[in-house]
Amino acid sequence: MRTGINTLFIPGPTNVPEVVRRAMNVPMEDQRGPEFGAFVLGILADLKKVYQTETGRVILYPGSGTGAWEAAITNTLNPGDKVLMARHGHFSTLWAEMATKLGLDVELVDLAWGAATPVNEFARRLAADRQGKIKAVFVTHNETATGVTSDVAAVRKVLDDSFHDALLFVDGVSSIGSVEFKMDAWGVDLAVTGSQKGLMCPAGFGVLAVSQKALAASAQATSKRAFFDLKDYDMLADTGYFPYTPPAQLLHGMRAALDRILAEGLENVFARHARLAEGIRRGVAAWGLETCAEHQSIASNTVTAIRVPEGVDARDVIRIGFERYNTSFGSGLARLGGKVFRIGHLGDLNEAMCLTALSVAEMALAEAGAAVEFGSGVAAAQAWYAQGRAVRTNRIAAE
Amino acid sequence: MRTGINTLFIPGPTNVPEVVRRAMNVPMEDQRGPEFGAFVLGILADLKKVYQTETGRVILYPGSGTGAWEAAITNTLNPGDKVLMARHGHFSTLWAEMATKLGLDVELVDLAWGAATPVNEFARRLAADRQGKIKAVFVTHNETATGVTSDVAAVRKVLDDSFHDALLFVDGVSSIGSVEFKMDAWGVDLAVTGSQKGLMCPAGFGVLAVSQKALAASAQATSKRAFFDLKDYDMLADTGYFPYTPPAQLLHGMRAALDRILAEGLENVFARHARLAEGIRRGVAAWGLETCAEHQSIASNTVTAIRVPEGVDARDVIRIGFERYNTSFGSGLARLGGKVFRIGHLGDLNEAMCLTALSVAEMALAEAGAAVEFGSGVAAAQAWYAQGRAVRTNRIAAE
Amino acid sequence: MRTGINTLFIPGPTNVPEVVRRAMNVPMEDQRGPEFGAFVLGILADLKKVYQTETGRVILYPGSGTGAWEAAITNTLNPGDKVLMARHGHFSTLWAEMATKLGLDVELVDLAWGAATPVNEFARRLAADRQGKIKAVFVTHNETATGVTSDVAAVRKVLDDSFHDALLFVDGVSSIGSVEFKMDAWGVDLAVTGSQKGLMCPAGFGVLAVSQKALAASAQATSKRAFFDLKDYDMLADTGYFPYTPPAQLLHGMRAALDRILAEGLENVFARHARLAEGIRRGVAAWGLETCAEHQSIASNTVTAIRVPEGVDARDVIRIGFERYNTSFGSGLARLGGKVFRIGHLGDLNEAMCLTALSVAEMALAEAGAAVEFGSGVAAAQAWYAQGRAVRTNRIAAE
Amino acid sequence: MRTGINTLFIPGPTNVPEVVRRAMNVPMEDQRGPEFGAFVLGILADLKKVYQTETGRVILYPGSGTGAWEAAITNTLNPGDKVLMARHGHFSTLWAEMATKLGLDVELVDLAWGAATPVNEFARRLAADRQGKIKAVFVTHNETATGVTSDVAAVRKVLDDSFHDALLFVDGVSSIGSVEFKMDAWGVDLAVTGSQKGLMCPAGFGVLAVSQKALAASAQATSKRAFFDLKDYDMLADTGYFPYTPPAQLLHGMRAALDRILAEGLENVFARHARLAEGIRRGVAAWGLETCAEHQSIASNTVTAIRVPEGVDARDVIRIGFERYNTSFGSGLARLGGKVFRIGHLGDLNEAMCLTALSVAEMALAEAGAAVEFGSGVAAAQAWYAQGRAVRTNRIAAE
Repeated sequence: MRTGINTLFIPGPTNVPEVVRRAMNVPMEDQRGPEFGAFVLGILADLKKVYQTETGRVILYPGSGTGAWEAAITNTLNPGDKVLMARHGHFSTLWAEMATKLGLDVELVDLAWGAATPVNEFARRLAADRQGKIKAVFVTHNETATGVTSDVAAVRKVLDDSFHDALLFVDGVSSIGSVEFKMDAWGVDLAVTGSQKGLMCPAGFGVLAVSQKALAASAQATSKRAFFDLKDYDMLADTGYFPYTPPAQLLHGMRAALDRILAEGLENVFARHARLAEGIRRGVAAWGLETCAEHQSIASNTVTAIRVPEGVDARDVIRIGFERYNTSFGSGLARLGGKVFRIGHLGDLNEAMCLTALSVAEMALAEAGAAVEFGSGVAAAQAWYAQGRAVRTNRIAAE
Repeated sequence: MRTGINTLFIPGPTNVPEVVRRAMNVPMEDQRGPEFGAFVLGILADLKKVYQTETGRVILYPGSGTGAWEAAITNTLNPGDKVLMARHGHFSTLWAEMATKLGLDVELVDLAWGAATPVNEFARRLAADRQGKIKAVFVTHNETATGVTSDVAAVRKVLDDSFHDALLFVDGVSSIGSVEFKMDAWGVDLAVTGSQKGLMCPAGFGVLAVSQKALAASAQATSKRAFFDLKDYDMLADTGYFPYTPPAQLLHGMRAALDRILAEGLENVFARHARLAEGIRRGVAAWGLETCAEHQSIASNTVTAIRVPEGVDARDVIRIGFERYNTSFGSGLARLGGKVFRIGHLGDLNEAMCLTALSVAEMALAEAGAAVEFGSGVAAAQAWYAQGRAVRTNRIAAE
Repeated sequence: MRTGINTLFIPGPTNVPEVVRRAMNVPMEDQRGPEFGAFVLGILADLKKVYQTETGRVILYPGSGTGAWEAAITNTLNPGDKVLMARHGHFSTLWAEMATKLGLDVELVDLAWGAATPVNEFARRLAADRQGKIKAVFVTHNETATGVTSDVAAVRKVLDDSFHDALLFVDGVSSIGSVEFKMDAWGVDLAVTGSQKGLMCPAGFGVLAVSQKALAASAQATSKRAFFDLKDYDMLADTGYFPYTPPAQLLHGMRAALDRILAEGLENVFARHARLAEGIRRGVAAWGLETCAEHQSIASNTVTAIRVPEGVDARDVIRIGFERYNTSFGSGLARLGGKVFRIGHLGDLNEAMCLTALSVAEMALAEAGAAVEFGSGVAAAQAWYAQGRAVRTNRIAAE
Repeated sequence: MRTGINTLFIPGPTNVPEVVRRAMNVPMEDQRGPEFGAFVLGILADLKKVYQTETGRVILYPGSGTGAWEAAITNTLNPGDKVLMARHGHFSTLWAEMATKLGLDVELVDLAWGAATPVNEFARRLAADRQGKIKAVFVTHNETATGVTSDVAAVRKVLDDSFHDALLFVDGVSSIGSVEFKMDAWGVDLAVTGSQKGLMCPAGFGVLAVSQKALAASAQATSKRAFFDLKDYDMLADTGYFPYTPPAQLLHGMRAALDRILAEGLENVFARHARLAEGIRRGVAAWGLETCAEHQSIASNTVTAIRVPEGVDARDVIRIGFERYNTSFGSGLARLGGKVFRIGHLGDLNEAMCLTALSVAEMALAEAGAAVEFGSGVAAAQAWYAQGRAVRTNRIAAE
């Protein structure tokens, strides 16, 4: 029998703050009632702050991030359009498969799982595309399967440097709201996330932000679409009323989550994610294990994929964590199955929780056969977190 | 300032029972954890009971009923396919628009808003379709906008009588779970509902049931689709794991709602809806007002659309009900705007609530200028409900 | 099987607003943590507003109103002290029994159940008490068993007129927070309520307000006491920390309830209770039934006790309301058992709910054998509520 | 701004399981309704299982454990009665103060804070009491302030050995439900706990179990009492209805908590507490710190009081834990203020949570100036917990 708290260290759905859960526990209401539209408009306005866009538009699609991916494609591209993508993890692979299914001509750059978006290779291909056949470039901002963050600003720069007009698509599912994302400054045209990641809500909404350029493209797009048709969502942007019955409780949750994010301050949210993630990485290093990310410079601040030693099955680590220690880690996906386990460290998190993750991981690794010294990863993270405290204390003292 | 209970008498989202709300208020969990699949399979099995199908398959699409409509079409039909539909209310109209958008060749029968599916006319057209060009017949089982229920079994019969092979699509959004729906017995191939109607949950899932014939068709269908692709949901049917992150809380709500429906017993649920609806209709008759439904024989047991007298604006009735009496009625949609208001009476409902609806409607009608006698509709419903009690008391006594 | 909403029309516990329930659903916290004291002090300050006292002190006793009664007595009176009380219903009777149990010498005025506090008789006895043997006068502000409100200000006046120094005790369990109560202006020394009445919270706190005079008396009192010892609660008043572990969730509920009461405005709360109660009374009159209260002038605005006709058992009315119509009415207590049923109309309530109470009561009365015309009480209340609307509309127009 | 989970490691209120919180979030109900009594009787029956009594009676007093203490005394003892008690911590001291306040003649044995109940000294005094002047012996089963568990069975033995008839009172506030407590086997007459400790509910109920001998005594007792009068609770034992409005939500929480305790099995609950506590103690030893308990043999399995090194203020440890790491530890009470901090480890707890407590305590101790090696306590606990796993794995394998 399970007792005590079960903590999630999967990279989504993330732990939902109490205040968000509480906000969601409301009776049903009339989503066409007179007060509903203004309520939704407020949420959309605050989502724009999270996306750091003033000129774009944010759409909430009932469904999931995958639905928002489809919406991004079918509303702006036409069957047969060429798009440039890289495959460097499970989610970038799925995205490419969807693009193919929806009739796009996918030009793929294949990389090791653990690499980031190949900016230089993209630059070469865009420069070579004299006729502008490439209609869109897809960037996986944070590869959730490998714990790798890519440089979206750099992709924007190579687009600009080659005077290329392609739309810039970004999968920000496990980045937006947790690490810096600048829609306007980076010239992103379509950016997707889900409600259940950095937004700290349950799953249920795919979130899509579209630039004015993408909106213009949508007026010309010929892909067949109905449920995800951007045009039907004009009324949402204008009035706050959804074309279809939305999950109203989830909207109340999102209201509470946005209140919290904005109260903490986006910069503080990002700094917290960076600080907590560094503690996890130092713990992993203290164990003598490798992360999936090829370099520290591209290591994600929202999820760390950890390679287990030879002879250890990562699935055992996950199973032991769950069955014996009531703690959920993320699994290795597709070709990484059994080879990595993942610690999600995004959303509503603090130092104590990260230390829990490390101490349980140590137990689970040891019981799965890895030669990990008890307390070693915890101590490395404690040292880092304590240091962070000192720094901040000084800063406060100086003010 | 609002005080007291706000009761919804809109035809969806419906009032969510306390036990369902409570079941939903759970922390996030790993939707890939070892216990999740069996949990979901149990829900799918019980949804089949509600659909009264043994041979079909039920899919839960994160999104809404509209998404499930799209899934039904794109997974089984091809662009250019001819389909037979009737337009007799706002939702059948929207459905036809979607079919057109998705590339179907829609053969439309236009009727008064307040009529039911024209079985005889459908029979004529199907008989005339010697070459089997009609690939599907669409039936709106319950037109939520007009409060009209159609005879699905009769449509099945005309298909059979003309030896026609078309797929039978049914929009059961506001009927399934509240009034009798027999997927297998009626030979329905694709049937759609949403979580927020008779299933008494918040919005968030479009529910699609597909027959084996529809599944076979889906293997051949060439419509482009990704998020709604039925193939990706094979794993859901087999293992209970979703291809994309599902709204887990909503699943817990659905579990509780299904427990409740099955504990009450489907037959008792239907009988309760019939009894409560009759009380509402007797109240309306006592006011001297007309329903939108053309005959009593097609009046819906889940929603009643009431025509206000000349000179009265139905929007005032709704506004007064909401602002002054904290009660939500449904509005007249599209061409019925201002002419009708709707009382939804489906889901988690009892006699006391129906009397509340009638007593508030009397207040709102009177304040909006209608010559309605206070207490008249309430008294008519009370007389009916009391009679029902007597009958049931006798029955119990006889046992 | 019960479906739909169960509404309480008992005079407490009252319906808890959603916002209060939501506020209560919090994890446990350390009631000695650094933020807890200020939180509690805010609640105590706002309770003083509800009591309309600036000079008194409010204590929250974990327990119930009965516990607060005991606290009032043992902290300020000594065994053998003479107190003046009236018995005119079940709760005033219980109070007198407690006083006797705790060793007081109770001088009782016995009245019909349905009468109010006998101000003139009290005046006579106080005037006759030349030696000041009467140490306290007890007034049941609102006799919950009979639906009768007494005139506390008048009792204060007779005390003043006879220059009598007795402490003035008030049982405000079912009045405070719902009808006007002026602790300071009326010179009340000890006033009790519970969390589960006008304060719209679950049961769990007895609330006691004490004047400075009562505090002074408590320093001299010799009754044995421990759990309820006022001295141990000095720290509560000063710091917001309880001497014993308090029900923390309930405090969060009370915070939300007070926010709501103060947002509505005390005057508006009282006016709403008066308006709603009058509708109930007009409904009862339309049925041709009597209330327990001897005159309209003393009829309570928080609860109405209704005498059923000869030959009808009020217990049947209550049972039918509960079993068949999912509605809870209050029963007749002690000698009123079977003769009256009570409709509580205090707390989080609106017109629609009052109409529900009346329409269900009509059903239950009829099924229990009373000759009540369906819709008659509802219509009388509707006419009154509609009139109230017109008045208020004009007032708003005039502003 | 706080983010993430706040975990309580105070010795009560304890962390309330999600399933208990959910069970409590119900609308108000009529506590005199027809279904309420049986519901309460079921709870009382299961509380008897937790107390391990078949012949005794369990009473739920709205209030707190302190109220139940008062009830125990005033219902069975008379002013002037001699009682034998020991003072060896803050709570035994408070208990003695209450006994004095309520008029008892307290014969006190004073001990170091950290000692257990002095069985031999009690034996000596009871043997010397030839005339049976000692009417009751009070034992603090678990001194929450020092983390010391006493041997109740041994006290029973000395009573029996000296053929002494005194009532045996036990304060089981922080033991019952978490460590073995055998009311019948140990011949306990009055045993108190609160809802917010091992019963894993919010505060709000004092729980008192009384033996038949205590019940008989209550018929003769002359202490004045009203709210806590045992006689008024005869109806509770017989029918499940409370004399005063009880906190109904809390009853639903207790129902869920008891279901959980009984599903885990009392023996398993005790074994879990023992296993988790040993991990905490090994962590403390690894830090080189002392516990307040004088010997390991009397160390409590529900709370550990840890002495901080010279020069460190335990209040800083607690403050840092709360402010910086969102974790609540218990403080040193009265004379232990600043010298100890306490880790509560009772109720809904698991290994991961204990490791969290230790890792945060290490951070807080270090930041407060203690020379504690990061990870050292965590590692010691991990080694113990892993060992326990191995043992259990073998046992399972052997079955």
